[in-house]
Amino acid sequence: MARDERGVTAQSEDFAAWYNEVVFKAGLVDRGPAKGTMVIRPYGYRLWELLQSELDRRIKDTGHENAYFPLLIPESYLGREAEHVEGFSPELAVVTHVGGKVLEEPLVVRPTSETIIGEMMAKWISSHRDLPLLLNQWANVVRWELRPRMFLRTTEFLWQEGHTAHVDEASARRETMLALDIYHEVARELAAIPVVPGEKTPGERFAGAVATYTIEGMMRDGRALQSGTSHYMGIKFASAFDIRFTSETGREELCHTTSWGMSTRMIGGIVMTHGDDKGLVFPPRLAPHQVVIVPITRGGNVAVEGAADELAHRLRSVGVRTHVDARPHLTPGFKYNEWEMRGVPVRLELGPRDLEDGTVMMVKRLGDDGKQAVPIDSLPEAMPGVLDDFQAFLLARATAFRDGHARTVDNWTDFADAVSTGWALALHCGIAACEEEIKSLTAATPRCVPLGGEPETGVCVRCGAASAYGKRVIFGRAY
Amino acid sequence: MARDERGVTAQSEDFAAWYNEVVFKAGLVDRGPAKGTMVIRPYGYRLWELLQSELDRRIKDTGHENAYFPLLIPESYLGREAEHVEGFSPELAVVTHVGGKVLEEPLVVRPTSETIIGEMMAKWISSHRDLPLLLNQWANVVRWELRPRMFLRTTEFLWQEGHTAHVDEASARRETMLALDIYHEVARELAAIPVVPGEKTPGERFAGAVATYTIEGMMRDGRALQSGTSHYMGIKFASAFDIRFTSETGREELCHTTSWGMSTRMIGGIVMTHGDDKGLVFPPRLAPHQVVIVPITRGGNVAVEGAADELAHRLRSVGVRTHVDARPHLTPGFKYNEWEMRGVPVRLELGPRDLEDGTVMMVKRLGDDGKQAVPIDSLPEAMPGVLDDFQAFLLARATAFRDGHARTVDNWTDFADAVSTGWALALHCGIAACEEEIKSLTAATPRCVPLGGEPETGVCVRCGAASAYGKRVIFGRAY
Repeated sequence: MARDERGVTAQSEDFAAWYNEVVFKAGLVDRGPAKGTMVIRPYGYRLWELLQSELDRRIKDTGHENAYFPLLIPESYLGREAEHVEGFSPELAVVTHVGGKVLEEPLVVRPTSETIIGEMMAKWISSHRDLPLLLNQWANVVRWELRPRMFLRTTEFLWQEGHTAHVDEASARRETMLALDIYHEVARELAAIPVVPGEKTPGERFAGAVATYTIEGMMRDGRALQSGTSHYMGIKFASAFDIRFTSETGREELCHTTSWGMSTRMIGGIVMTHGDDKGLVFPPRLAPHQVVIVPITRGGNVAVEGAADELAHRLRSVGVRTHVDARPHLTPGFKYNEWEMRGVPVRLELGPRDLEDGTVMMVKRLGDDGKQAVPIDSLPEAMPGVLDDFQAFLLARATAFRDGHARTVDNWTDFADAVSTGWALALHCGIAACEEEIKSLTAATPRCVPLGGEPETGVCVRCGAASAYGKRVIFGRAY
Repeated sequence: MARDERGVTAQSEDFAAWYNEVVFKAGLVDRGPAKGTMVIRPYGYRLWELLQSELDRRIKDTGHENAYFPLLIPESYLGREAEHVEGFSPELAVVTHVGGKVLEEPLVVRPTSETIIGEMMAKWISSHRDLPLLLNQWANVVRWELRPRMFLRTTEFLWQEGHTAHVDEASARRETMLALDIYHEVARELAAIPVVPGEKTPGERFAGAVATYTIEGMMRDGRALQSGTSHYMGIKFASAFDIRFTSETGREELCHTTSWGMSTRMIGGIVMTHGDDKGLVFPPRLAPHQVVIVPITRGGNVAVEGAADELAHRLRSVGVRTHVDARPHLTPGFKYNEWEMRGVPVRLELGPRDLEDGTVMMVKRLGDDGKQAVPIDSLPEAMPGVLDDFQAFLLARATAFRDGHARTVDNWTDFADAVSTGWALALHCGIAACEEEIKSLTAATPRCVPLGGEPETGVCVRCGAASAYGKRVIFGRAY
């Protein structure tokens, strides 16, 4: 395959190969020894930590408390909610032995924690005064993957899972939408992914949910990535786990519950939303290094090295995550290529000449600005704005890409054409067999019924039956 | 059993019962369904998060990077280091089935990650330029426990595990001591536990280590709690996993590695170091709520409630973690007892009279100050100092307790007496059979050879043979 000088396959040639090369080459991830597992390397983990701290703050600011529930769940728990066990059974990893002895009851490694948290909620909740109970946990989960892809589908991944219990449907549904709003904001404002929030069609719902909401991002190959989901469970899990409360009027009632999760999958979403043929492009708000300074010292130049360190210090003092690449055995050119491939938003090149002039060469990872000589002393004040502009640029670029690859279609030919390169917004009958037929013909599935969609009715784009949902559905091939 | 009005067994009557009652009653923890597992409830988890963020900052400030390695490890990996597998085999939870099918090779749920990280290090390290490799991960681990005790010995617990690789022994040993220093500082300055840093005797070493260092805390029943350990592995794991590098002179050499961990066990240590018959006492630097304000409203008093909220706001703005307990259905007296039991360092009682006087009643969780009327307007400035003083008071109190229960002994009668209520500092021969005999007679084991101990030689306190280690050893009963 053709590769550019940095050895990455072009996106246009083979997007999947590009993705696989770039996540490994950029040092985000490595393969674990057990099938489908991944090692999140420091550069990838730092991105996750930055996303995590922003998401965690929003979760706490809206009244949720973090807790931690056991990894190992008695196998019988899963079976208490019929749809739930049916959905997860094929993916369960099961512990049958401990210390060389067979367990009486096997334990599953949590694929998600509705069951064990439901069991504990039943114990903790007795009065309406205990509600709402707003919990969140940061945890690893295991779902066996036959066709793993780093960050997108791995046997183990990291996530947060919110679990809440409420006195009634209205309160639980408000919570479901609140979580979706948080995900929307995090994806859009931090990851610069212009996701579309919407509701899943029945066939795409979480196993055991009454309603599932999602944020869907468009990747640069036109496919959709489900980037966070929020579920209203009704009283299904409350019935299965006996989560009851005594109401203000003294009646015993079942709680309405929700759950919602965002995972390390977001890292893959960031890679596929912003990356290009040179490699990664990180949005500044989540970039481990927002700025990399490359001192051009050709065999050691104390003044240049000192100036680079001082500039880094000044940038850090205004909150800019700055890295000085002082590795003596590598050329500046090698470093430029490497940090471009690793997606650093802004590179500063500082040589002896620049230092004499009191300037530094600034190069942004994307955009038409080219190299610019910038006064060193202006940078501490200017850099936060440069990064904000770059963040806004990425969001605008991704939005333009998304809008350029999403078409409103009213006939099958246009539909098939649209989903071959992006999304189709179409009316659909909502019938499962018709969804299946569309999938088998085009590989496209209903991604969501967008919350912002205008009311519209008519006939199904495929079968001509009366449309469902009262508005258009987004169809696309999905990760 | 006799209980005080809050229903907690007295420490002096049955320390183990006191501990078990208080950790549940204070809402730190609950039992999980699988044997020996725990649910860390929000109040306990918040304490862990505060400790975690402080420890994480120190780990990063000393050049380590966080990463994440898979939970599931091929069973054969454990066997590559003989002592390691022997030490951990009895505690391993093993996944044998996934998605209903039998795995070709069983996977163990990580009890610790030396093996899988060793495997990855071998892949990542090739040159001396790749060293030192300084990694850390925050993770859950599983070690099957037959006699579980919440936080102290649980089937699953949370921790950080540092794993580093170095060019030589000197560098690796420096790292081992650096990690121990961090643990010492975190335990002493944040948890207010005056731990003793020292080296483990050979029989107490980590499975596979060349040297194990520990910080040992004394609990209020006189027992020792190992509160963090740091291991120098020599080239044992590097040999087992082929972690090699090319030196500056072009020779291929094995790395020297280290690992070190601190866990949720620390929560148990805090409970048992500072708690009393009223319940928990939290050190301010880790207390989820440093200050609780109880408005005395007797059926609703808008002015008092508003003043409580305003005071909370002002305290938070100077960085004091403040909680207003506005629950309308509970009496002030009930709340006072509850927050005492839950270990809040400072309580502020605010009634209509106080508000008229512009004061608030301040009550510290421990100490001889009693209730003090304090001007409301002085609190934002004064409170950080009040909390610092309380933190220092707890450390001094715990230090006095430790020193009052640690005796330098030179004969067996004194030794047996000392370890029945605390620690014995004694000369010991270092012979395993003699250690075993001491353990069977007194339940005491060598906790560590303290780093700060004065050089001293003589005869073994038990068998009269020549002493080892060149200094006294701390013996005590341990958790």
